[in-house]
Amino acid sequence: MDLVDINCDMGESFGTYKIGQDEEILKYVTSANIACGFHAGDPAVMRKTVQQALDTNTGIGAHPGFPDLTGFGRRAIDVTGQEAYDMVVYQIGALQAFVQAEGGVLQHVKPHGALFNMAAKQPNLAEAIAEAVYKVNPELILFGLAGSELVKAGKNTGLKTASEVFSDRTYQSDGSLTSRKEPDALITNQEKAVEQVIRMVKENKVMTLQKEDIDIKAQTICIHGDGEHALEFAEFITDALKNSDIAITNIRKILS
Amino acid sequence: MDLVDINCDMGESFGTYKIGQDEEILKYVTSANIACGFHAGDPAVMRKTVQQALDTNTGIGAHPGFPDLTGFGRRAIDVTGQEAYDMVVYQIGALQAFVQAEGGVLQHVKPHGALFNMAAKQPNLAEAIAEAVYKVNPELILFGLAGSELVKAGKNTGLKTASEVFSDRTYQSDGSLTSRKEPDALITNQEKAVEQVIRMVKENKVMTLQKEDIDIKAQTICIHGDGEHALEFAEFITDALKNSDIAITNIRKILS
Amino acid sequence: MDLVDINCDMGESFGTYKIGQDEEILKYVTSANIACGFHAGDPAVMRKTVQQALDTNTGIGAHPGFPDLTGFGRRAIDVTGQEAYDMVVYQIGALQAFVQAEGGVLQHVKPHGALFNMAAKQPNLAEAIAEAVYKVNPELILFGLAGSELVKAGKNTGLKTASEVFSDRTYQSDGSLTSRKEPDALITNQEKAVEQVIRMVKENKVMTLQKEDIDIKAQTICIHGDGEHALEFAEFITDALKNSDIAITNIRKILS
Amino acid sequence: MDLVDINCDMGESFGTYKIGQDEEILKYVTSANIACGFHAGDPAVMRKTVQQALDTNTGIGAHPGFPDLTGFGRRAIDVTGQEAYDMVVYQIGALQAFVQAEGGVLQHVKPHGALFNMAAKQPNLAEAIAEAVYKVNPELILFGLAGSELVKAGKNTGLKTASEVFSDRTYQSDGSLTSRKEPDALITNQEKAVEQVIRMVKENKVMTLQKEDIDIKAQTICIHGDGEHALEFAEFITDALKNSDIAITNIRKILS
Repeated sequence: MDLVDINCDMGESFGTYKIGQDEEILKYVTSANIACGFHAGDPAVMRKTVQQALDTNTGIGAHPGFPDLTGFGRRAIDVTGQEAYDMVVYQIGALQAFVQAEGGVLQHVKPHGALFNMAAKQPNLAEAIAEAVYKVNPELILFGLAGSELVKAGKNTGLKTASEVFSDRTYQSDGSLTSRKEPDALITNQEKAVEQVIRMVKENKVMTLQKEDIDIKAQTICIHGDGEHALEFAEFITDALKNSDIAITNIRKILS
Repeated sequence: MDLVDINCDMGESFGTYKIGQDEEILKYVTSANIACGFHAGDPAVMRKTVQQALDTNTGIGAHPGFPDLTGFGRRAIDVTGQEAYDMVVYQIGALQAFVQAEGGVLQHVKPHGALFNMAAKQPNLAEAIAEAVYKVNPELILFGLAGSELVKAGKNTGLKTASEVFSDRTYQSDGSLTSRKEPDALITNQEKAVEQVIRMVKENKVMTLQKEDIDIKAQTICIHGDGEHALEFAEFITDALKNSDIAITNIRKILS
Repeated sequence: MDLVDINCDMGESFGTYKIGQDEEILKYVTSANIACGFHAGDPAVMRKTVQQALDTNTGIGAHPGFPDLTGFGRRAIDVTGQEAYDMVVYQIGALQAFVQAEGGVLQHVKPHGALFNMAAKQPNLAEAIAEAVYKVNPELILFGLAGSELVKAGKNTGLKTASEVFSDRTYQSDGSLTSRKEPDALITNQEKAVEQVIRMVKENKVMTLQKEDIDIKAQTICIHGDGEHALEFAEFITDALKNSDIAITNIRKILS
Repeated sequence: MDLVDINCDMGESFGTYKIGQDEEILKYVTSANIACGFHAGDPAVMRKTVQQALDTNTGIGAHPGFPDLTGFGRRAIDVTGQEAYDMVVYQIGALQAFVQAEGGVLQHVKPHGALFNMAAKQPNLAEAIAEAVYKVNPELILFGLAGSELVKAGKNTGLKTASEVFSDRTYQSDGSLTSRKEPDALITNQEKAVEQVIRMVKENKVMTLQKEDIDIKAQTICIHGDGEHALEFAEFITDALKNSDIAITNIRKILS
């Protein structure tokens, strides 16, 4: 039987501002990526989200991003490897403390937004982030885009890695995601999205926008917790995976 | 032989901005309170300061403050106990990660500035901070003003505490420091400052501004790392303590 | 015929985060208090909100607050008069530039949250804020709680002032609002809220929580743009005022 | 007689942190670029620097940068034209208010750091910044690198522009500055630096690193206010310009 983890970004509210439906979406998620206060989240939100994840027995990950609340961490900032290292150590630590305080264990790290995208392609950033994770705790699992520099750097550093795929994004021949600036970046048809995911999990293949079949490793699927249809899609994909004999299970079991 | 720890605030530079003479002052200090990015410090400064403290075998403490870089954490902010708890957990975690990454162990926590002063007097803040420290790691030592609510809350929570005295500040009959807004708040004469400290360590007494002798517990002495005469005074007080048969030693030994 | 202005806080969204229903509420409002990026709002939100206010011919005000996005400007910060002056000048200027860029004219200034409450009671803050407004532009109208130190300071400085009343808050015998920490702070019954407002406008009286009648000047009514029933209440109060022969009109006309 | 303006970045201190020797350097400067709180500066520093500039009759400019205090505005952030427009309007406004409050007139705008460099090369950012300046006040002078997209956009928008040259930086054949990442970016020999500047002012030529002579327009010279030798160099260049019959005068006179 095939196994897959489902991860989702969480804890992105800030102060008075609320985003996402964390409590509801947690039912469908095995790994929660919790914002650490730089691109989203604040200490109170982090504490509450950690508690919710522990209550639902969801794996907890730090979700470090660029220090850019206005841009939600989605704007590339031209940082050095050292700067990326420093901001990732800081954010992992901040989240880890809330997990410790609640008696839990931090499971993974997944960079956010522009930092995630840059680390997928730039080896120096990928290596810096992998080193940050490893030095804080070599038992942490590093999540990265399947086939990316980040996954490669994680392996080289000695970390366990989780290769992540997206159900609702189209792929390029080099295995990268089609940029959101392109018209065909998103797969809006739910059935097509699920079909793509199931094929990635069962056959380790994805058809690119250029109509080529490429290899892809699918250990964790990213879903989204905001947007109108987030919950509906979470339920839809969960059912579809089960119906295809794919068990949704925590990434720790998949990697062990 | 009497024993005392010397602590100093450190890592207060930020980005391009430099404050303090951390490298030089570390020679005289047994416990370093390292800023955590809210009132001062940034991830790069935190990493470097942790490295310096480890190189000199100085005990490392988190120095959490209010999120107020403009005011350097010195302006009171009317936070709830829960808000204080959350911001302290966050900041301890951030610093702890740099300590872990460098292979060290976090030793203590000392709140900064207005948060320190408020926690000395307000039981709800004191308890919230003590709980934050305890829940992140019950082995951490909590530094607080001798006789303060913070030390009391630390003990009640089950933490080891370090009672802190100031060489260059005058005391009120209730054991509090004379407010910096008052004219007689500071002891600028170095010999008088040292005399006060030695008496606090050896006799556990201090003469207040009201000319009363009160009891005071002196386990750690706070000195300052910025200002023109910081290094000179650090050397002066160190020599004076030794000459009075007071050994300067790490707080862990004093408390064990 | 009695005249009254209706003001509402606006432009409180930030980056990805959305608060309020500015576009809809603007139909009922004659003066818009637009957040300036310290407690809420960002440059993009400020530009859009200024455009919306100009489109609906609503008077535009700067709504400066404490630099505390996490606390939404609602936590008291112990600032000096000089610090309050500086932060108010800065924020008025930032908003004024967007108004200039769109070809409009800035009409008023109303401090936000904790800064508003502190300026109502502390003469030094009230004077500092009034001076900030006056020095940037002596034609600006200063909004303050009816009977407050802020209104007094505004008059003394030479500014036009608008005395503000709240429909949904109860009053104390000294003319201050009942603190939100007290159980009876809010008037949740819409009819009672409107009755209170109408009496304030027509008779310049309000019945306090202590069952005393006190004098109150009502030149502008504060309504809220967020909350479930915001739009409904805006319509309700508008209708009720008109039915009581109170014309809702811009504060400039009322003061001229 | 040839005329030239000398500009310098100022007001870059922040809170407790001090950078630069503004008061001393102002003696040598005819245009002060004052930081606006995003990459450096805070409201108190802005007020004081504006007062100092007015006291010395120095032209006052807004110096808007990226919202990145940690990186001092030197890290490229991938913003849209609209985002650049918004952040420039905001910052010009904030500084303008302090100038108004002190009874002065804002003279110019010069973007800072990475925003300056990006606007030199990217037409969409250049146009957005020029539009921001023009819409706030069409009388403002836009400072940009000689030959840059920013100067071009300023002219197209209808602004007066000042073409800026650097004494201590080497040039590339396309008129751009050699990147600071390259070894030969800086001219550290003071006499060579001054020679280059004098030739730029008198002959409108500069010898590039590639040993080609290119045309360059030199209306304002950028000098630096921090660094050990800042004051010494300011005096040196001032003397050298005078000895070469170049009058140092305000940019307004040069452009009128």
